[in-house]
Amino acid sequence: MSERLVVIGADAAGMSAASQARRLRGPDELSIVAFERGHFTSFSACGIPYWVGGQVARRDSLIARTAEEHRAREIDLRMGAEVTEIDVSGGRVRARDLASGAETWTGYDKLVIATGASPIRPDLPGIDAAGVHGVQTLDDGQALLDTLEALEGRRAVVVGGGYIGVEMAEALIRRGFAVTLVDRGSEPMSTLDPDMGALVRKAMCDIGIDVRSGAEVTAIRTDGGRVRAVVTTSAEIPADVVVLGIGVAPATDLARAAGLPLGESGGLLTDLAMRVRGFDNIWAGGDCVEVLDLVSGMTRHIPLGTHANKHGQVIGSGVGGGYATFPGVVGTAMSKVCEVEVARTGLREKDARAAGLQFVTVVIESTGRAGYYPGAEPMTVKMLAERGAGRLLGVQIVGREGAAKRVDIAAVALTARMTVAQMTMLDLGYAPPFSPVWDPVLVAARKAAAAVRDS
Amino acid sequence: MSERLVVIGADAAGMSAASQARRLRGPDELSIVAFERGHFTSFSACGIPYWVGGQVARRDSLIARTAEEHRAREIDLRMGAEVTEIDVSGGRVRARDLASGAETWTGYDKLVIATGASPIRPDLPGIDAAGVHGVQTLDDGQALLDTLEALEGRRAVVVGGGYIGVEMAEALIRRGFAVTLVDRGSEPMSTLDPDMGALVRKAMCDIGIDVRSGAEVTAIRTDGGRVRAVVTTSAEIPADVVVLGIGVAPATDLARAAGLPLGESGGLLTDLAMRVRGFDNIWAGGDCVEVLDLVSGMTRHIPLGTHANKHGQVIGSGVGGGYATFPGVVGTAMSKVCEVEVARTGLREKDARAAGLQFVTVVIESTGRAGYYPGAEPMTVKMLAERGAGRLLGVQIVGREGAAKRVDIAAVALTARMTVAQMTMLDLGYAPPFSPVWDPVLVAARKAAAAVRDS
Repeated sequence: MSERLVVIGADAAGMSAASQARRLRGPDELSIVAFERGHFTSFSACGIPYWVGGQVARRDSLIARTAEEHRAREIDLRMGAEVTEIDVSGGRVRARDLASGAETWTGYDKLVIATGASPIRPDLPGIDAAGVHGVQTLDDGQALLDTLEALEGRRAVVVGGGYIGVEMAEALIRRGFAVTLVDRGSEPMSTLDPDMGALVRKAMCDIGIDVRSGAEVTAIRTDGGRVRAVVTTSAEIPADVVVLGIGVAPATDLARAAGLPLGESGGLLTDLAMRVRGFDNIWAGGDCVEVLDLVSGMTRHIPLGTHANKHGQVIGSGVGGGYATFPGVVGTAMSKVCEVEVARTGLREKDARAAGLQFVTVVIESTGRAGYYPGAEPMTVKMLAERGAGRLLGVQIVGREGAAKRVDIAAVALTARMTVAQMTMLDLGYAPPFSPVWDPVLVAARKAAAAVRDS
Repeated sequence: MSERLVVIGADAAGMSAASQARRLRGPDELSIVAFERGHFTSFSACGIPYWVGGQVARRDSLIARTAEEHRAREIDLRMGAEVTEIDVSGGRVRARDLASGAETWTGYDKLVIATGASPIRPDLPGIDAAGVHGVQTLDDGQALLDTLEALEGRRAVVVGGGYIGVEMAEALIRRGFAVTLVDRGSEPMSTLDPDMGALVRKAMCDIGIDVRSGAEVTAIRTDGGRVRAVVTTSAEIPADVVVLGIGVAPATDLARAAGLPLGESGGLLTDLAMRVRGFDNIWAGGDCVEVLDLVSGMTRHIPLGTHANKHGQVIGSGVGGGYATFPGVVGTAMSKVCEVEVARTGLREKDARAAGLQFVTVVIESTGRAGYYPGAEPMTVKMLAERGAGRLLGVQIVGREGAAKRVDIAAVALTARMTVAQMTMLDLGYAPPFSPVWDPVLVAARKAAAAVRDS
């Protein structure tokens, strides 16, 4: 008996699911139709800042797998086709061909929703002016690059101090722009606590980015339809180009209209097998879902390619008759500002408070290599541990070479629900080029364990 | 009531113990006497290859804490004093002042044995010739450096292909020597499986080291008391200087004579609080003990500064009336050959077999960064998982920047006794400069999980 799988959205989650399902079930058993409204499949949105910054020369190197490659695996991939309705009771989706405007219904036995996320575009005067760019798709990236090359002025304003904002600010510095970053938070990179975010701000200032924290954008000043300045609560900043990096929201209008369950952030809610809660034949994954935060026990929206790929893998297994689950996340993320590496996992102070946890925090300074070894650079590690129980709750790291990926130690420890006292005796790799004899994470764990004892 | 603590050996384990005990108990409560037969305290033996290689300019930067600094914390540190007997029933040790030859007995309430390890020096003709050097102490390092500077010839032979041998071979290359490394194993770095060791051999050959594997040294050819060549089972290799890096054995003659319990490798056996088994007031730590391998369940001798420091911390807590334990190790170690990083944790194939385990092995190739990001270099990850149960058993990594410390992910997973299937969903840090969207460790875990399912 042949079944039909319909996939909505042909990026990481959707096409990983389709590919994995295809691996498990041949075309005779499972036909796969995938709808994608955009021009590209399976691309690395995370790579866009490096393409704009010039470290990655070619757009196409960001495409993990092309439409043709997917079709070669017998996936009926329909590009430029936007799904406009999910008819759950009828088991079908309606799609519009964006070129012709024609609409057709396609029935499904199994449905994968991988509609991703949409950039937040605040409703401000002038927001649609020429020269105001989002950077979520490859088309966005190309449009921005075209603008940058045509510009006479060299003044750029980046709105938003999260990962994408910080990365785009660096990219524009690399392109020779004078860059101002406007951020409403007290410090950039608000996925860190402000004390650690302050280290990121310093790194940004050190490469010449003008960081305006605690500032809200109120309007985009235009002239002849082109951006001329960004108006904030505290100043008017001249701008030849504006990049919006305010964040994204789950693209779940379709799912909402179909009556599917959404969480607080608007993301789809799934079970551990990534099936939409309450539906046996509908899966969802990637940037359109909420994921279980294993540390706080709450669901969160964390749009990140690495989760989307795992979701796709799990969904594809389920669709294909295998078995896999996505247990949840601990909230690991990382970035860098030139040579300064930034990483976090687990809960920030405010997350821990919101989860009802009491905790201790410690901050330590160490180095990434033995102090006497050339290139031993400072590293700051912040650690949160639960009061009493001593369970690790979170780690934030700012440092240089080798700093960021050290957060993986904490990511695994969080997954295993280790205490900071247990962590003090972890058998982490040591050799002078790679670590002091006490790895910075161990130093933090020791201090945190002492703080737990005193708490 | 004041007690006396006697510490035998003033390097990492002994002086960490003394310092931690002093933190917990002031001089009025606890007097501390430490005996050290050498000239230095608390130095980084692991740093010697980098001092010899010139990356570390000054010998003294390898000294973590000097004798004077220890004395300033009211530790009665007696340098050049060798303990020659432990009288367990009498609660005292006999020490000889190496300068005067005078012997004295010192009573103890609590004893810490931190006698370290002694380099293995095979009983070969010519082994004591001028120009044949060990490299365990700072004195050894200085003697070697003096020899190197005085030499007219530039031919060096390193005996032993373990960490110290490989690191010394690179150091001598940096000093402009023609270096031959003689090793009895089939591949260098026998703490890895041979297939991964072969990658290390290639890295060594690439920097010009002449690697002779499967060769046993039978004699040192001398002329006028100076080394002239190293004779092996397969060749005679001209040498102006020879460096021995054959490994070390626990220095436990004293302990053996005192009737203390030793394991198969000759290391002292302790309980989890690092007390010598069966003795309430004698602790031992560092390179003179055997440690519990948490993966195989057996004790092993693993001389490594990071363990010694942890032991000292645990011992000092116990001596000072606090509480801490050293749960054991998973066998993490790392090194590098120029830019090639090498790391391992857990069991090799032969360790797993010796432990009675059945297992699957997988080897994957990936990159340390997103494939499109500049500097994405190849990385090879080997993973062992238990058949049936799927428990992670070991990981070996050879690659470039960022490769080695990734083994920490596996070290924590081994400690938590995770399965490779669990590991596939670990929330490891992802961003293009730091990792592909599937971290190489995740790629290996996925392949290993599939192999477990098929096993």
